[in-house]
Amino acid sequence: MEKVQAKKVLVNKGNCEETGRAGEGKMSSSRKIYMDYNATTPLAPEVIQTVSEAMQEAWGNPSSSYTAGQRAKEIISEARQSLARMVGGEPQDIIFTSGGTEANNLVIHTAVKYFREGNKQRHDGLRDQKKTQGTYPHLILSCIEHDSVRLPVEHLVKEHEAEATFVPVSKASGQVEVDDVIAAVRPTTCLVSVMLANNETGIVMPISEVSQQIQALNQRRVASGLPRVLVHTDAAQMIGKGRVDVQDLGVDYLSIVGHKFYGPRIGALYVRGPGIVTPLHPMLFGGGQECNFRPGTENTPMIAGLGKAAELVNKHCEAYEAHMRTIRDYLEERLKAVFEEQGIHFSCQLKGSKRLCNTSNFSILGSGLQGRLVLSRCKTLLASVGAACHSEKGDQPSSILLSCGIPYHVAQNALRLSVGRDTSKEDVDLIVEDLKQAVAQL
Amino acid sequence: MEKVQAKKVLVNKGNCEETGRAGEGKMSSSRKIYMDYNATTPLAPEVIQTVSEAMQEAWGNPSSSYTAGQRAKEIISEARQSLARMVGGEPQDIIFTSGGTEANNLVIHTAVKYFREGNKQRHDGLRDQKKTQGTYPHLILSCIEHDSVRLPVEHLVKEHEAEATFVPVSKASGQVEVDDVIAAVRPTTCLVSVMLANNETGIVMPISEVSQQIQALNQRRVASGLPRVLVHTDAAQMIGKGRVDVQDLGVDYLSIVGHKFYGPRIGALYVRGPGIVTPLHPMLFGGGQECNFRPGTENTPMIAGLGKAAELVNKHCEAYEAHMRTIRDYLEERLKAVFEEQGIHFSCQLKGSKRLCNTSNFSILGSGLQGRLVLSRCKTLLASVGAACHSEKGDQPSSILLSCGIPYHVAQNALRLSVGRDTSKEDVDLIVEDLKQAVAQL
Repeated sequence: MEKVQAKKVLVNKGNCEETGRAGEGKMSSSRKIYMDYNATTPLAPEVIQTVSEAMQEAWGNPSSSYTAGQRAKEIISEARQSLARMVGGEPQDIIFTSGGTEANNLVIHTAVKYFREGNKQRHDGLRDQKKTQGTYPHLILSCIEHDSVRLPVEHLVKEHEAEATFVPVSKASGQVEVDDVIAAVRPTTCLVSVMLANNETGIVMPISEVSQQIQALNQRRVASGLPRVLVHTDAAQMIGKGRVDVQDLGVDYLSIVGHKFYGPRIGALYVRGPGIVTPLHPMLFGGGQECNFRPGTENTPMIAGLGKAAELVNKHCEAYEAHMRTIRDYLEERLKAVFEEQGIHFSCQLKGSKRLCNTSNFSILGSGLQGRLVLSRCKTLLASVGAACHSEKGDQPSSILLSCGIPYHVAQNALRLSVGRDTSKEDVDLIVEDLKQAVAQL
Repeated sequence: MEKVQAKKVLVNKGNCEETGRAGEGKMSSSRKIYMDYNATTPLAPEVIQTVSEAMQEAWGNPSSSYTAGQRAKEIISEARQSLARMVGGEPQDIIFTSGGTEANNLVIHTAVKYFREGNKQRHDGLRDQKKTQGTYPHLILSCIEHDSVRLPVEHLVKEHEAEATFVPVSKASGQVEVDDVIAAVRPTTCLVSVMLANNETGIVMPISEVSQQIQALNQRRVASGLPRVLVHTDAAQMIGKGRVDVQDLGVDYLSIVGHKFYGPRIGALYVRGPGIVTPLHPMLFGGGQECNFRPGTENTPMIAGLGKAAELVNKHCEAYEAHMRTIRDYLEERLKAVFEEQGIHFSCQLKGSKRLCNTSNFSILGSGLQGRLVLSRCKTLLASVGAACHSEKGDQPSSILLSCGIPYHVAQNALRLSVGRDTSKEDVDLIVEDLKQAVAQL
């Protein structure tokens, strides 16, 4: 911690004013501009305040019956309401989790368990038991899901506990095609999981359309004794950047990740009527918290902070979105102006596809201009070449971009810049100049 | 949150100064004294400061390669070192989790997985395959484990995925008897899980002796192709109240729960050489954090706070322990003096058994003096009748106390008082008087 205290970081701007540590007698100063808001966001000042207050004042065990505990319980209940409002659901549909990874894993665990339990019942019954008996649950994912969706499914496949189809994205639109998803459905399919917006390209997926078609399909399936296909979307990248409404989306599950919308490092899972309308099978067992769906003494301060972050989104989402879109458009305009001659390809701009308001994925064309190399020469810009989890995977281009049909040599040069609530045009000017100088050196 | 801001809570003392909300024009004042430190503790002021600083300054994604991420990574690494020092292990043996519930569930998940994988190998090999083939993993628990150990095991038993033996505690000592544990071992046993100190009685269990005997047994078992018996202890209640050393304890796994030692609501699992010396099978799959054993973007502020809480324990544990023991002894002395004539039974005082320095579990004898009833008449004392998770389970006496052989009518009247780092003799005087008046009314 000591090491960190000596640094001054401007959180509101998400920018880092880096100075050498006083103790080292070094005072070099270089302003850093953070444009990696898809990797993580700073906590909003209001969120920090809420977490701090809850640490001071709401440390009681929410399961304790006296006032200190009950107060913590109230705070959790208020946060649950804010989250429900944010996604258009009911408070009882919000299950707090330790983060997006747990939320995503919980959905996949549930789908497999749901299939097996249904299979048992179908087997016990008389009708149509042969249709799915002795078979594996089948899961459908897009091929551009986050590791916390892809890897638990791959693990199940490896362990011979499930089968999976990875639906490709269209090279024309960067989107999963609804018809491809529907075509992949088998009698044993129990889950479709497609992210709401991709973290690298920013392309928004047609979730409402997928849900609609699956719903129609489900009516026929259930009538003929087949398992219902559950629909999940990982909304990590969309929340706080655009409208998210579970009624419009028509999904059964939706993952919420605090640190992508200026909240703390926990998350939640929206489940439409957990255990009643929609199956939910816990991965953990213990003290009964979260209606037994997710036990463990509640992380009250972080839950309070997540509630505050949701409240901010509820109040200001349109303004956030408008600002980020303006800045992102200005960024792309400036990049085009500076690099058009040299050649620049925007992997995030695809005709007919909606995209996140804050994300630009582009490649400055030319040999020796690999994304990592360019970033390493930048003095001001903090950004990435793809998902942060993959930051140490060497020089391979992003598998997401390759899946989207971006040629290898273009994908290799890709940079992902994602702007935030306080990124300014001045910031853009500075980092475009920074990029220009970095590229000139290479 | 608004509701809470109007209340003044003295965190350092763990006491609540409750005043009516100003807006309501009510100014009644009644001092509350918290003696439920086994349910949860307030956060140490140093921990609050550390979490707050990390929220401000270390919000970068620890997987990001630029400075902001790397600084977060450093903080996490320092916290890992503090936790390792606290339990006498190596930094790489500490896996951060969302809390004790997850840590405990992870151990049970691992043991079952370990047995199955070993079974597969034994089956593939030539030798002794019949000994465990086609059988279920067998788990041994004490009958007084926390729900986050007991319930995942009961779930596995119900699902026909494991068998379990619940070893009783001796009525004379309140302890699990080492011989009973060893006698329960079967060829298919893969885990012994016994808590280090009980949350309700405070009785300390003979973990070192269990480990020693299991170790001797394991040498013979491994030689004859049987699975090794893994040893786990849930140290939730002992950390910060007495010395915890994984070398002395000889365990393979040890659960660490932040909010029981003035830290935040996350936890960690100590694993002796995870994946190398000791098996560890992840429950979650995702971005590769915690060496893939527990993926998910790290909750840096809470991890920093957990590290700080461990640091405080490393520095002051002996002083904490001495203080709490003095206060607890004074409490029991005063209770005896006041209630001896009426009759008082201390379920926590058993000859030959070590016990936690801070916990007193006692029953004021007489009809109509059920624990919950007495507490409801107390004006000052905040305490409980058992584990907080069970606070809403009606008037049934604690199953833990009944397991320890406490007669039903005594167990029904039980109160669990647990003192903290700042509880004073004055606090004790006040709550004993409070209890006296409550009992007089009933």
